[in-house]
Amino acid sequence: MSDIAEDRIEVDYRINIGDPTEVAHAIRVEQTIEFPFDLAPEWIQQQVVGQVESIDGHNVTISYSPGVAGGGMTQLLNVLWGNVSLFPGVRITDLRLPDSYLDSFRGPRFGVSGLRRLLNAPAGPLICTAVKPMGTSSQDLGKMAASIAAAGFHIIKDDHGLADQPWARWKERVRVIADHVNEANEQAETNALYMPSLNVPADRIHDAAHEAKSIGARALLVLPGVSGFDAMRTLADDDSLALPIMAHPSFLGSNVVNPDQGIDHGVLFGTLMRIAGADISIFPNYGGRFSFSPKECARIQDKCQAPLGNIAPSWPSPGGGMTLDRLTELTDFYGEDVALLIGGALHRGDLATNSRAMVEALSDQ
Amino acid sequence: MSDIAEDRIEVDYRINIGDPTEVAHAIRVEQTIEFPFDLAPEWIQQQVVGQVESIDGHNVTISYSPGVAGGGMTQLLNVLWGNVSLFPGVRITDLRLPDSYLDSFRGPRFGVSGLRRLLNAPAGPLICTAVKPMGTSSQDLGKMAASIAAAGFHIIKDDHGLADQPWARWKERVRVIADHVNEANEQAETNALYMPSLNVPADRIHDAAHEAKSIGARALLVLPGVSGFDAMRTLADDDSLALPIMAHPSFLGSNVVNPDQGIDHGVLFGTLMRIAGADISIFPNYGGRFSFSPKECARIQDKCQAPLGNIAPSWPSPGGGMTLDRLTELTDFYGEDVALLIGGALHRGDLATNSRAMVEALSDQ
Repeated sequence: MSDIAEDRIEVDYRINIGDPTEVAHAIRVEQTIEFPFDLAPEWIQQQVVGQVESIDGHNVTISYSPGVAGGGMTQLLNVLWGNVSLFPGVRITDLRLPDSYLDSFRGPRFGVSGLRRLLNAPAGPLICTAVKPMGTSSQDLGKMAASIAAAGFHIIKDDHGLADQPWARWKERVRVIADHVNEANEQAETNALYMPSLNVPADRIHDAAHEAKSIGARALLVLPGVSGFDAMRTLADDDSLALPIMAHPSFLGSNVVNPDQGIDHGVLFGTLMRIAGADISIFPNYGGRFSFSPKECARIQDKCQAPLGNIAPSWPSPGGGMTLDRLTELTDFYGEDVALLIGGALHRGDLATNSRAMVEALSDQ
Repeated sequence: MSDIAEDRIEVDYRINIGDPTEVAHAIRVEQTIEFPFDLAPEWIQQQVVGQVESIDGHNVTISYSPGVAGGGMTQLLNVLWGNVSLFPGVRITDLRLPDSYLDSFRGPRFGVSGLRRLLNAPAGPLICTAVKPMGTSSQDLGKMAASIAAAGFHIIKDDHGLADQPWARWKERVRVIADHVNEANEQAETNALYMPSLNVPADRIHDAAHEAKSIGARALLVLPGVSGFDAMRTLADDDSLALPIMAHPSFLGSNVVNPDQGIDHGVLFGTLMRIAGADISIFPNYGGRFSFSPKECARIQDKCQAPLGNIAPSWPSPGGGMTLDRLTELTDFYGEDVALLIGGALHRGDLATNSRAMVEALSDQ
């Protein structure tokens, strides 16, 4: 047990390989000093190296000094899942961060209550969709977005794969869709947020976010697995931007889908996304075309909304293969603080009719 | 088979789940339009959706129009491993990119031959190490670095976990170590490159790289799994920086260590690291404290140096648990174009003596 008088970061691991005691020792050294333990000065062994707090069968808890994770989000990710990500058979099952450490992060600027205020949606789930498919012109994407906005959807995002393709260039697309959504909002007295995909080069992401805002976008879609969690945090923290952020799980799947290795679904898509400033965290819903189980989805929902220092709760956003006939089931499962992401099914038949039907079905709940 | 008259991106997958034909169809749609295939216009089905080129048992090849991956590195990563990363049982086994597409990337600025010129090291392996352990003061890290530089090491990097901890603040540490290395180089007539870790906030990484250069660092360590591959590319592409870049595998492990899911070791640590501008790509050596097999390490070596359009070869850098008595074995295995990363073992006994012994052992080969 650690006898250091300080709040510490605690990480729970399940060790599915080798002797848990030996692997725990390897992890506490690897994630800190990465140096032969016996050669480190005694004070470093005690105060810098992680401390094994408990071993219970395959379940191990190691605590780390917050100083080890000094330097912000990048080093937090490195302490959690740097070298140990290269170990087969190790999985992070839970994470507890002291309030004093969490105070260095702002987290979601809007969160659940802030987005409800912004959208004037005091109760019920948010209803979201993406404009697609790739290949469609900016004008046609804009027309789609206008139909969906007029129907009363809360959020209309770019499909995350819309980047800077020949069929619809980034800046033109963002301007055309933002114009269509804002005009539809005005005419239909709706309040949809258009959210362009910041799937752009790293040295463009900050300027692209500000450009998007200046041409009428009122929210942003970020891919932290591609652009970096800390790039998302800098956008969330930018007071001159101050837009809601939705996080997409692109490139992150291997961290969660292998049951014996990786990071707990809730820790990655709940805790870490919140620390990195996501107001809304997308993940594949159970029963859709992906693989997450109801239990894994419930875990994400829980970690999006569990106490986390002063960091606001975020919206879990289950997506992928969702259809109108599952609405009641999903609000029963997730509760009302959920951002339902409706996919391609909205396009089967007439988009405007389907969009209105979806909004009505929600209002009837 | 595709009858589109263009150079296409080809991705090989091994499908370890379900019916390979069905999963292949799901992938080609998911990684492009993410939309019900039957609802997409015919030209989008033909020109935007990926094309299944072959199915041979569990091995599938899908080709994509380069236009789909328009917008640079972020969308390339998204096409390769965006939503499909969330599929269990799918692994990318190989990747072929047309020269016309690769022409939009500069790749490593130095590569194998450029780094040989910079270091005045016309033949033989490079010899590299890290200063550590975390907890050590900047002055003591600087003294270590001076001993290693004077012994004739080619590269001295920060341990990747050195960020901005209370024991050695980032800027002070970088200045002190750079001063020590540069002074040792002058006195001993050696030419070691000091490489600070750019484990810094996303909105600081560009300025930190320039600061590091201005205070005497001559190379950079980047963590693309944490900071983003495209952040590394922007540093590599920066003509006003023009420093060699070493890539660390932090946070990337889950993408490779699960045999039935993820990305081929060589594609990730060879091909993608080169496209993103890494001159040197670190990975855990076989037989060390991690898990990579000799075959996986050979695959990385191969992909670091295989033809890739106009993109220069990079240095594979096996590390982790390496000791002096393995030197001959490793140069036999990897050939001479290898950057050997010696770890904590250098500190067992006297650092200066061990460092000189290591350099002498290499010269004797």
